[in-house]
Amino acid sequence: MRKTILTGIKPTGQIHLGNYIGAIKPALALAKDKEYQPLYFIADYHAITKGYDVSKFKELTYGVAATWLALGLEPQEVIFYKQSDIPEIFELTWILSCMAPKGLMNRAHAYKSIVDDNITSNKDSDSGVNMGLYNYPILMASDILLFKSDIVPVGKDQIQHIEIARDIALSFNHHFGETFTLPEYRIQKETAVLPGLDGRKMSKSYGNTIPLFEEPKKLRKLINKIVTDSLPPEAPKDPDTSSIFQLYQEFASPEDTLRMRKQFAEGIGWGDAKNEVYKVMNQFLEEPRERYVELTSSPQKLDKLLKEGAEQAREISKANLQNIKEQIGFL
Amino acid sequence: MRKTILTGIKPTGQIHLGNYIGAIKPALALAKDKEYQPLYFIADYHAITKGYDVSKFKELTYGVAATWLALGLEPQEVIFYKQSDIPEIFELTWILSCMAPKGLMNRAHAYKSIVDDNITSNKDSDSGVNMGLYNYPILMASDILLFKSDIVPVGKDQIQHIEIARDIALSFNHHFGETFTLPEYRIQKETAVLPGLDGRKMSKSYGNTIPLFEEPKKLRKLINKIVTDSLPPEAPKDPDTSSIFQLYQEFASPEDTLRMRKQFAEGIGWGDAKNEVYKVMNQFLEEPRERYVELTSSPQKLDKLLKEGAEQAREISKANLQNIKEQIGFL
Repeated sequence: MRKTILTGIKPTGQIHLGNYIGAIKPALALAKDKEYQPLYFIADYHAITKGYDVSKFKELTYGVAATWLALGLEPQEVIFYKQSDIPEIFELTWILSCMAPKGLMNRAHAYKSIVDDNITSNKDSDSGVNMGLYNYPILMASDILLFKSDIVPVGKDQIQHIEIARDIALSFNHHFGETFTLPEYRIQKETAVLPGLDGRKMSKSYGNTIPLFEEPKKLRKLINKIVTDSLPPEAPKDPDTSSIFQLYQEFASPEDTLRMRKQFAEGIGWGDAKNEVYKVMNQFLEEPRERYVELTSSPQKLDKLLKEGAEQAREISKANLQNIKEQIGFL
Repeated sequence: MRKTILTGIKPTGQIHLGNYIGAIKPALALAKDKEYQPLYFIADYHAITKGYDVSKFKELTYGVAATWLALGLEPQEVIFYKQSDIPEIFELTWILSCMAPKGLMNRAHAYKSIVDDNITSNKDSDSGVNMGLYNYPILMASDILLFKSDIVPVGKDQIQHIEIARDIALSFNHHFGETFTLPEYRIQKETAVLPGLDGRKMSKSYGNTIPLFEEPKKLRKLINKIVTDSLPPEAPKDPDTSSIFQLYQEFASPEDTLRMRKQFAEGIGWGDAKNEVYKVMNQFLEEPRERYVELTSSPQKLDKLLKEGAEQAREISKANLQNIKEQIGFL
């Protein structure tokens, strides 16, 4: 049997180039590996533990779905669903919460860091913490365990969540008999951090992002805005400290990258270099951008795809929850 | 429109006379009031926040359902369902947890009392607390709010849970627009505490109970065991301090109760008095006991009834959850 590999996608903002390079590109690569049964889901109920814009929420969800599909997620090859379409996840969340010691949540990094901040600013230690945030690791454990996921690719900040899911699964299996697969995390290789417009890491919170599917004219304008030094065109430049070069190599072929490296050494004007970046990026993005626009302009199509995905996912989740309810004496 | 009145029943043990007099009898009386739409549910997922016997859980659930039906709950007149048959409750639990400040849970009496005990015994303050226990008030809020319950009859120890449900509903309505009905609690009249075999309050934890549907011979034996004083038969006796008299008046007609009161004043032997108690109890219980035995011996019938109840309940819960998901931007 193929191993199950689970990837969750939180719809929390407009997708930018940094998201693509850092998370989407490596996650999509995994879907190509025939050794795995890949499950991808939009973690919409994870996105409401913090304040969010109700009026834009649905659009964001569609945007995330369209992005992944546009970039090559094949609904025929993976199971792709929205968390909120799988009621079994929430019933299992309750069951798991009855197996999860409260101490386990007290030690969760995200919660602890808020508590520390509160204490530093002389506030009540739980100030601003809602129960969704506090229960977050249990919902995530349910996402993972319900589908008997073997592997969960995560960033380093998420390792603890996988460990919590394992702890809960172990405790459940111990009390009620072998039921859950113990998930393993797989750290997503730290790809070079993509620099933003100002040279710092590209991040929504710095306001220095390039939206992934920006239209060509705006894309060119944004690339022109990338901060460079003031060396004259003919001066040799160090590619390894240049944002422009880094962006270029993420989208160019190895041969073109080598060529550009030489041009940097020989001297290239920043204007010309930026033009090359634009060309290579736009070439790569042209097709996905078209598919993205097409998908977001036909939400019925997205709804249909996600509905079909949910049906596939629920074949698994219903059977597994049935089994879990038998184990705990309910059926 | 009729007001909705919601009663939850936890399947945590064999039903005894004290449960009947203190909780079931008054709750069933409410179902007769045509002013209300009564909902009754078996709170099976509330029962797993503490250790429980997996092998007996289903039997307990059937036992509770059979008890209420045997005592006069009319499935045609009320909606009677099992909590675990209503997936919408758990999805809403997650939504509500994102609206519930953690501080609200920290102040819940049941949790606080465990923390206090832990601190007194020099343990970690959260020792032995699982997340099901901590989240208990949110699940209860979901039970109540999902069905737009107007009135929830509770014992005094449950008032705070209704207040928490109101707090969460108010906050939700404030953020997302009018959605939830604010529930009100109704305190169940403190009926005289029914004495157990040893004269103390009848309670599972004292081991002094009379099971409600005990067979006649055993029932008679148990009644004979009730502790009395050693006054001789001809001595006048005070009915108002006598367990025997209290039990008698719970089952006898007002006329018979008055007659017995006189007999106490004139002198009656404890043996004779116990015999009268047995007769009046057995007469009342004969029919329900038969129905109970019939129901528990045909779980298919109970399953069918509960399934039909769940279908009725889900007509409401599905429509209401749909509306809630629209309010929070999901649909």
